[in-house]
Amino acid sequence: MASPILPLLPSNLEVIQDPNQVAKLSKDYYHFSPVLTAQLQDKVADVVIRPATEAEVLQVAKACVASKTPLTVRGAGTGNYGQCIPLEGGIILDLSKLNRTKWVKPGLACVEAGAKLAAIDKITREQGWEIRMAPSTYRTATIGGFIGGGSGGIGSITYGQLADRGNLTAVRVVTMEDEPQILELRGDDVQKVNHAYGTNGIITELEIPLGPAYPWAEVIVTFDDFMQAARFGYTLGEADGIIKKLISIHAWPVPSYFAALQEFLPPNQTAALLMIAESSLEPFGELVKAYGGTVTYQKTAEAAKKGAALAEFTWNHTTLHARNVDTNLTYLQTLFPYDTDLKLVEHMYRHFGDEVLMHLEFFRVHGQVCPAALQLVRYTTEARLNEIIRYHETQGAFIANPHTYILEDGGRKEINDTQVAFKGQVDPYGLLNPGKMRGWLERNT
Amino acid sequence: MASPILPLLPSNLEVIQDPNQVAKLSKDYYHFSPVLTAQLQDKVADVVIRPATEAEVLQVAKACVASKTPLTVRGAGTGNYGQCIPLEGGIILDLSKLNRTKWVKPGLACVEAGAKLAAIDKITREQGWEIRMAPSTYRTATIGGFIGGGSGGIGSITYGQLADRGNLTAVRVVTMEDEPQILELRGDDVQKVNHAYGTNGIITELEIPLGPAYPWAEVIVTFDDFMQAARFGYTLGEADGIIKKLISIHAWPVPSYFAALQEFLPPNQTAALLMIAESSLEPFGELVKAYGGTVTYQKTAEAAKKGAALAEFTWNHTTLHARNVDTNLTYLQTLFPYDTDLKLVEHMYRHFGDEVLMHLEFFRVHGQVCPAALQLVRYTTEARLNEIIRYHETQGAFIANPHTYILEDGGRKEINDTQVAFKGQVDPYGLLNPGKMRGWLERNT
Repeated sequence: MASPILPLLPSNLEVIQDPNQVAKLSKDYYHFSPVLTAQLQDKVADVVIRPATEAEVLQVAKACVASKTPLTVRGAGTGNYGQCIPLEGGIILDLSKLNRTKWVKPGLACVEAGAKLAAIDKITREQGWEIRMAPSTYRTATIGGFIGGGSGGIGSITYGQLADRGNLTAVRVVTMEDEPQILELRGDDVQKVNHAYGTNGIITELEIPLGPAYPWAEVIVTFDDFMQAARFGYTLGEADGIIKKLISIHAWPVPSYFAALQEFLPPNQTAALLMIAESSLEPFGELVKAYGGTVTYQKTAEAAKKGAALAEFTWNHTTLHARNVDTNLTYLQTLFPYDTDLKLVEHMYRHFGDEVLMHLEFFRVHGQVCPAALQLVRYTTEARLNEIIRYHETQGAFIANPHTYILEDGGRKEINDTQVAFKGQVDPYGLLNPGKMRGWLERNT
Repeated sequence: MASPILPLLPSNLEVIQDPNQVAKLSKDYYHFSPVLTAQLQDKVADVVIRPATEAEVLQVAKACVASKTPLTVRGAGTGNYGQCIPLEGGIILDLSKLNRTKWVKPGLACVEAGAKLAAIDKITREQGWEIRMAPSTYRTATIGGFIGGGSGGIGSITYGQLADRGNLTAVRVVTMEDEPQILELRGDDVQKVNHAYGTNGIITELEIPLGPAYPWAEVIVTFDDFMQAARFGYTLGEADGIIKKLISIHAWPVPSYFAALQEFLPPNQTAALLMIAESSLEPFGELVKAYGGTVTYQKTAEAAKKGAALAEFTWNHTTLHARNVDTNLTYLQTLFPYDTDLKLVEHMYRHFGDEVLMHLEFFRVHGQVCPAALQLVRYTTEARLNEIIRYHETQGAFIANPHTYILEDGGRKEINDTQVAFKGQVDPYGLLNPGKMRGWLERNT
C-alpha cells in the first residue's frame, strides 16, 4: 500500500518500500511473549524511512504532520514488549544511520540516537570510559532504543536504573507539532521522554553519563544449591570493595540451555555468571571460597574479546537461549524486595518448581541491592500466566509485566502525567507510536 | 636516655636522638581527646630510626629482637587515638622514607608503607586512577598508617570501609621473631594486620585497589533546617546515578568554626560539604533543587587544586578546626543504623542540643548507605563524656570510642583472635607497639 506521505518527502531520504524489508523492520522481539505474539504478529508499517541527519528527521516529522501519518521510531528492534511495532501502520523511522559519537569527556559522552551501544564503547574506551549500563543486546541495540524502551541491565548493580536521576544527562527531541521543532531537554526534564517508547518525541541525540572502563573479567561460579548461590550473589552485590558489573544467577535447568557454555556448567548445578573487575579478582576469589563455590570458567578482559560474551547469556538473552531449545518457554520480570535472607525468592523457587525456573539478576534500587528475576515460565495458557503473575504480586513481589505493549501496564503501573502532558504539547495529533500510551488513549474518557 | 639498641644497628641507618625531635615524633593527634591527653602526654621513645628500605627495616627488627627493645611504627603521626604513641619507650620506626609507588595498573597499585596518600594519587592519576578512600589528613598521612590505624573516610560513600574485603589486596610484613623475616599476606590473610595499629608486624609494602579518578567538583550546599540537610545527604548517598566522593553535613554552629569558608556559610544554616563528579553536577543540581538547598560554593576539579580543599573541613578535620576555636571541644564517632527517616539522628540532635553538635558523614556499610557522625562534644568531665556515649549505645547507635588507645576498645569491641594469634607468631616477645592490643595483654589471664 502506498503511503500518502511519500509525495511529501524530499528525494534525499532513504525510503524502504520492499514489503519483506518493511515487514522485517516492523518487528522486534515481542515473540518472547505468546500473549504479544497473538496481538502483534500482523502489525506492519506502510514504509520505512531511514534518515541520516537530524535535519532529515525534521523533514520527515513535517511530512508526517502534514499528512497525519503515524510515525513509530525504531532503533535496532531488540525490544521485547513490541515497543516499536507500528499498531496503526504509517511509517517506521529507522534511526540506525544517526550513529555518530559526537564527543567524549571524563564521565560523559554525546551520541546520536542510532549509535549502537558497543560502537559507543569502542570510542569512549579509548579515553578510559564506557556506557554505565547496557542490555544483553549490547552489540546491536542502539542508545536511543535503550533509553526509549529499556530500563537497566549489565552495570545496574553499580548505577541502578535508567530512570534514576543522573543516568541520562540530556536529550534532543524532534517534535510533531504543526511546525515541528527541535527541543533540548536537560536535568529532570529528560524524564519527559525517558522510557516513553518514543510516544512523545523523536529522540535524535543524547548526552549520557559514562563509568570507568575497568578491564572486566568474565567468570562462572557453580554451586550445589540454588539458595547458596543466591546468597553468594547478594553478598557479592553488597561487597562495596569488590567491583563488579554483572551478577546473574541461574538455577538448574536454566544453565542447560546455554549450548556454547556446556563444558563449564555441570548438570544440576546453579551457575553464577559474573563480570568482575580484574583488579578485584583476588578478593572475589576469597568470597567464592567462603561460599563454597567452584570457578569453572574465568577469562581476562583481553581473552573475553574472543568467543561468546558471558553477558550474552544473561538478562533477557537467557530467555533467548532457552527459547532456542524450547519455544514453550516465556518469562517474567520480577523485582523482589530488599531482603538479604531472600525469603520470598526461596518461596517462589520452591512454590513453582519446574513451572517457573529461577533466574536472578542483582541490581541497585535507590541505593540498595535487590534481587530481580527474569524467571523462565513453561507456558500453558494466558490465564495461567496471569495467575502466576498475580500470585507473585499478592506475595509482595513486583512484576514488570513483559506481556503487554502498553507503556503503563509494564513496569510503571500508573499514568505519568508529565509524559502525557508532554505528548499533548509535542504530538497534538497523536501520531507518534500510537496505541502504546494508556494515559494518552484515556485522556478524554 | 641511650637505647641499648644503638650499638646493634648498622651505621647506614638514619638515627634521631635529639630529644626535641624524638618527643615530636612520639606524638600523634591524640590531643583531640582530653582523656587520651591525660594518659599519653608523657610517653616518649628513646630514639627514632628512619630506615630507607625494607632491608633496613629488617636490620632494625633484628636489633630490636636481640635487645628486646620495644618498636612502635610511625607513618605521619596523623592518627587520633594514640595509635603510634610508644607506651613503653624503645624506638619509633619512622617509615616516611619508604615512600615509593612501585607500580600502577588499572585499578591497582603497589606502594611502600611510608608513601603519602596524596603523593600516591599524583602518580596513579596519570593513568586515570586514584586511591579509593582517604582520611581528611590525605595530604600528609601515609598509606601504611592509614591501613594500620584508619578505617575509612572520603570515598567510603562508594567503597565502604578499609576492613571490607577488596579494599586491601596484599601486604608485606617484617616480623619480630628470633629470626625476623618478610612475609607476604594476600587475600583474606591481609586482615591479620589490617587495622592492628602495627602491633603484629611491620607493614613495609602494600598492594591497594584504586578507583576511577573522576574530576571531582567541590560544592557547599546550605539548608535552613538540619534534618532537611540530613535527608538530602541520605538521598544523595543512595542516588546510584550520581557519582560522589564525600557527603559531609554540618549543623550550625559547626560551620562557624571553618574560618576560611565563612563567606560561603551563612549564620544558622546547616552546610553540606560535598565532592561530586563533574559529570554528575547537572543531575546533582536537580537534587539540590528538590530539597530546597542553596549552592553557596562550587569549584571545578581544576579550580579546587588551589586554596583550601573542602575535604580538609570534613571527617576529623572538622574537629581540628573546631578545636582551633575552642579547645574545650572534643568529639564522638557514631554509626547510626540504616534508616532513611533518620529517626535516631534526629533524636540525638534534639536531645543533646548545644552539648553535642551534629556532624554527619555518610558512607556505605556492607552495601547500604548509613549515616555516621563525628559529633563535636562540649567537654566537661570524663564521666559526662562516658554518659553521653552510653546514652547513644542504649538508644541503638554504635560508638567507635575515640577516647581509648586500646585497639579493641575503639570500634571493634571484641578481641580478634586471628590478629592475636598472628602476633603470637610474628612478635613472640610482644615488642611491637606494646600495650595497645587487649587480646595480647590478656592472653594469659
